[in-house]
Amino acid sequence: MAEYMSMDHLKFLLHEVHNVEEIFSLSRYQDFDKDSVNILLDTAKTWADQDWFPYIKEMDEKPVYFKEGKVYSHPQLKKIFKDGGENGWIGMYFDSEHGGMQVPNTVGLAINHILESANNHLQGYLGLTAGSAHLITSFGSQALIEEFVPNMLAGKWGGTMCLTEPQAGSSLTDIKTSASPLEGEQFKIKGQKIFISGGDHEATDNFVHLVLARIDGAPAGTKGISLFVVPKYRTDGTYNDVITAGDFQKMGQRGYATVHLSFGDADGCIGYLVGEANQGLKYMFQMMNGARLEVGMSAASTATAAYYASLQYAKERPQGRRIESGGRKNPDQEPTLIINHADVRRMLFIQKAIVEGSLSLLIESGMYQDYALYGSEDVKDDNYHLLELFTPIAKTYPSERGKNAVDYGLQVLGGYGFCSDFILQQYYRDIRIMSIYEGTTGIQSLDLLGRKIPMGNGKALQLLMGKIQEVLTSASTYDEFKPYIKNLSSRLEEIQKVLAKLMPLAMAGENEKFLSDATTFMDMASNIVIAYQWMKMAVKAKENLLTGNGQNDQLFYESKIHTMKIYFKYELPRVTSCYQTIMDDDVLTIVDEKIEILA
Amino acid sequence: MAEYMSMDHLKFLLHEVHNVEEIFSLSRYQDFDKDSVNILLDTAKTWADQDWFPYIKEMDEKPVYFKEGKVYSHPQLKKIFKDGGENGWIGMYFDSEHGGMQVPNTVGLAINHILESANNHLQGYLGLTAGSAHLITSFGSQALIEEFVPNMLAGKWGGTMCLTEPQAGSSLTDIKTSASPLEGEQFKIKGQKIFISGGDHEATDNFVHLVLARIDGAPAGTKGISLFVVPKYRTDGTYNDVITAGDFQKMGQRGYATVHLSFGDADGCIGYLVGEANQGLKYMFQMMNGARLEVGMSAASTATAAYYASLQYAKERPQGRRIESGGRKNPDQEPTLIINHADVRRMLFIQKAIVEGSLSLLIESGMYQDYALYGSEDVKDDNYHLLELFTPIAKTYPSERGKNAVDYGLQVLGGYGFCSDFILQQYYRDIRIMSIYEGTTGIQSLDLLGRKIPMGNGKALQLLMGKIQEVLTSASTYDEFKPYIKNLSSRLEEIQKVLAKLMPLAMAGENEKFLSDATTFMDMASNIVIAYQWMKMAVKAKENLLTGNGQNDQLFYESKIHTMKIYFKYELPRVTSCYQTIMDDDVLTIVDEKIEILA
Repeated sequence: MAEYMSMDHLKFLLHEVHNVEEIFSLSRYQDFDKDSVNILLDTAKTWADQDWFPYIKEMDEKPVYFKEGKVYSHPQLKKIFKDGGENGWIGMYFDSEHGGMQVPNTVGLAINHILESANNHLQGYLGLTAGSAHLITSFGSQALIEEFVPNMLAGKWGGTMCLTEPQAGSSLTDIKTSASPLEGEQFKIKGQKIFISGGDHEATDNFVHLVLARIDGAPAGTKGISLFVVPKYRTDGTYNDVITAGDFQKMGQRGYATVHLSFGDADGCIGYLVGEANQGLKYMFQMMNGARLEVGMSAASTATAAYYASLQYAKERPQGRRIESGGRKNPDQEPTLIINHADVRRMLFIQKAIVEGSLSLLIESGMYQDYALYGSEDVKDDNYHLLELFTPIAKTYPSERGKNAVDYGLQVLGGYGFCSDFILQQYYRDIRIMSIYEGTTGIQSLDLLGRKIPMGNGKALQLLMGKIQEVLTSASTYDEFKPYIKNLSSRLEEIQKVLAKLMPLAMAGENEKFLSDATTFMDMASNIVIAYQWMKMAVKAKENLLTGNGQNDQLFYESKIHTMKIYFKYELPRVTSCYQTIMDDDVLTIVDEKIEILA
Repeated sequence: MAEYMSMDHLKFLLHEVHNVEEIFSLSRYQDFDKDSVNILLDTAKTWADQDWFPYIKEMDEKPVYFKEGKVYSHPQLKKIFKDGGENGWIGMYFDSEHGGMQVPNTVGLAINHILESANNHLQGYLGLTAGSAHLITSFGSQALIEEFVPNMLAGKWGGTMCLTEPQAGSSLTDIKTSASPLEGEQFKIKGQKIFISGGDHEATDNFVHLVLARIDGAPAGTKGISLFVVPKYRTDGTYNDVITAGDFQKMGQRGYATVHLSFGDADGCIGYLVGEANQGLKYMFQMMNGARLEVGMSAASTATAAYYASLQYAKERPQGRRIESGGRKNPDQEPTLIINHADVRRMLFIQKAIVEGSLSLLIESGMYQDYALYGSEDVKDDNYHLLELFTPIAKTYPSERGKNAVDYGLQVLGGYGFCSDFILQQYYRDIRIMSIYEGTTGIQSLDLLGRKIPMGNGKALQLLMGKIQEVLTSASTYDEFKPYIKNLSSRLEEIQKVLAKLMPLAMAGENEKFLSDATTFMDMASNIVIAYQWMKMAVKAKENLLTGNGQNDQLFYESKIHTMKIYFKYELPRVTSCYQTIMDDDVLTIVDEKIEILA
């Protein structure tokens, strides 16, 4: 079987770089240890090898489709729901009282990395089912939990999140779906929801939609949004007036159904209020933050699979000759494998730097999440702040630079990369959605600069700077790392200068100006955060090379140090171009009412 | 009809910025003047509106396909060949003695911009037919010209270029297709050619393939390659043993047939030698340089169409509120059009900066081409050098940054951008091939740094620096431009420092090291060349604003100056990151025989 991810790298990150073992001392995770986690990962890998990876190409070639009110999905999806339910994967994060495994978030992310590298079309179905069940267990009544959650975690009913409406798009302020009180927690639901992932398919016999709607008379805007459980069929088996109005045919992730749902066309759709009225957005965002990490992981994993596919091609394809060895046009020499061409190596190494760096960022985010949720009181707040800071970055960097990584992967194959027989073109299409899902890059960037940087008087950023300094200090033990420490330090100065320019605008209430280059700030900040990940990996690799500790061979650790250097040479300089853009005093993208100069 | 390009911008470039009128004084072009060129462009626009643009989406949705030895193409292709032949478009560049219009290359590029913005799947069919006919008229015998060229220019027979073979890919050194002498200029041809664009379809009843092959006993490598005319049917109507062995289904440009041809399976394939034996590669490259400009134009045009599609969406879609006006979540305000959001404007303006800058670069390249071919003896050599320098850049910049421009266009539409109902996802797929066609970005970059920079002791670069200085001097008349002059000047210093580091490596014969970051050098150099284009456009716009000359209104010229500033703020800083990468002394991408660290 073709490689699509590296278990060695994943375990290196978990056990050597980020010390996932530390969280097993938390009472929630006391049943886990290194060995049991590795067994869990290996089991997931076996499942991925057998039931996920073999279907990735077919799911693209035979996409889901809509016909006469119903969405038809790939037959394998049924097996995934069944196995996912029976073997506890869907409920892996859940409390044992709900039948879950209480798997740490960090480990769950690692498992999803394996599954999504194997097949990025499938995990969303399970992930959304778990996510919506989790909203019910977190905020719903005991009755709702008992009625819906067991069948969801068993993989019998699919779950979805219904936020977007045609007229509102990303602007939840403008949600119009209505909820009219009936009795108790029951409401009559009416409205249209679009872009609903996993909203209809053949693999489960019921759907449990978590729907944002506005109770009659609720305040306007986001303050008047409530959350409802709206099943397609009620638990007594009667049809609940939820119509699949159509599907969205997409450029990529064509095995992952995206549908348009219509609630209450015949006035017969009942929804059950989750928690309190008008708290819907708050509840949804508890889930949304996790979903953003999952999207980041999906992007990182798709790019990982693309990296391994292009690496394999480069190792097998002879073409041309090395420039140094008598010229690349010398017919007297046998052609070399293309992996020996500097430009091909550059494209492969940059991919490696992006995908392995992304994965490290996501694992670190998982650790913050575990401590923020289940850590002792004295560490919770710090970890919460770090998680909040990391979330938009961990969603955006793998999506944006992962897209570029796949682009390099495709380029490695030349003309074949563009051909449908090879999978690179599919990954190129699949990954493109990631910078749109769950809040576009523009929205994540507003969140980072507009909310996460200023929150708690810049507490999160201070904590991160402390973390980076810590790594720089351990790196300074090794002469080899001195130039890279200097390099990263000068990037830190650049971002400080940028903030010294931007924050006074925020103070002065000039918010549009403050935020107009938020996306460039995101690019800058995320590149620094990945440099920090690489420095961290390189330091651990160096330690293990010197001590002989660590689970991997010398070449493995040398490769990490080499890839850190690749990152610092080829990727990190992006920071300076972002710096120049933001420090440029021209204000060019804010509407000037006088003239319309875009044409 | 939706806009897909701007005639105003195209005419601004031709008549105001690059003064295409100057070449009408060349004897070859004496029948042209400004009015006749404008009529030609307007006629092309009418044709594009009627027969090209309405089919772009359908050609993707009903792609060409292969069945039982035959490729089936979209019915509209037949009309395009017919009109293209009857109205002289296929032969527009040709000498009047061959029935051509003797259209200047610059004007031809402009016409192709119109056609390819309307539909990037079609022009290649006509362009390759013209290109292969041009090889025959340039180097073939009178008999060959008479036998094949008239039907090609009439759109009755399609022409192709057959270079690539399965085992060789981009390495023409390793071509194996054989040619055994029969009599006179006749040879028996045997071999496989892949990725043949337009190599089979339903629109013409014969195909004239221009095939690179090796005459028995010829020297190894590129010195032993000859060029042959190999028709599918000989002019007496007998079948010439050219089999369509299959097609390549692709991610994009799905209306443009890409096929696998097998020559002489039944030992009955006759080819006619073009020109002299063993000169095939030289002949082919005369054509290839033009083809590279055409690919650049195809990329620039696809990105242009994407820009206009996303601009139209942004002008029509209400969503959210401006940040400044009481907050983006204020439900008491009506949603604004998304074109009013700073981040959306940023994405639109960057697209505009890339696509309009690319077009200017291509028009300037066309001027160099016209002077290099038909100019007086005293200007030919300078223009030849500038053309040689510009060609890899004009092919690569629009392909690489055009790809990013389309990416922004898709992002402007959010989730809809990913959906098949909207055309952005198609342009995103279509443009991806451009950095692979006719020599990948890696190959163009080797050509730029390894051949074009050193040629004639750096003559081309010196000439370019002179051109840039000229524009900076005229810009310095205006205070408004002072900061941008300073900005560009500092980029010029950066590229000088880079060359001062790299050229000694070339002198010392350390070619692999010299060229290992050629692609980064390409990124750097091309961004500077586009900055020069923008400075040139801005200066002309400023002049016209002050004098009241020029064909466009005030807003048009203000928009050019504004977009120049956008380019300088958001795009030009890439130069510094490239500078840092190349100046970094780590050598990381050249194979170290000791270890294999890519895994």
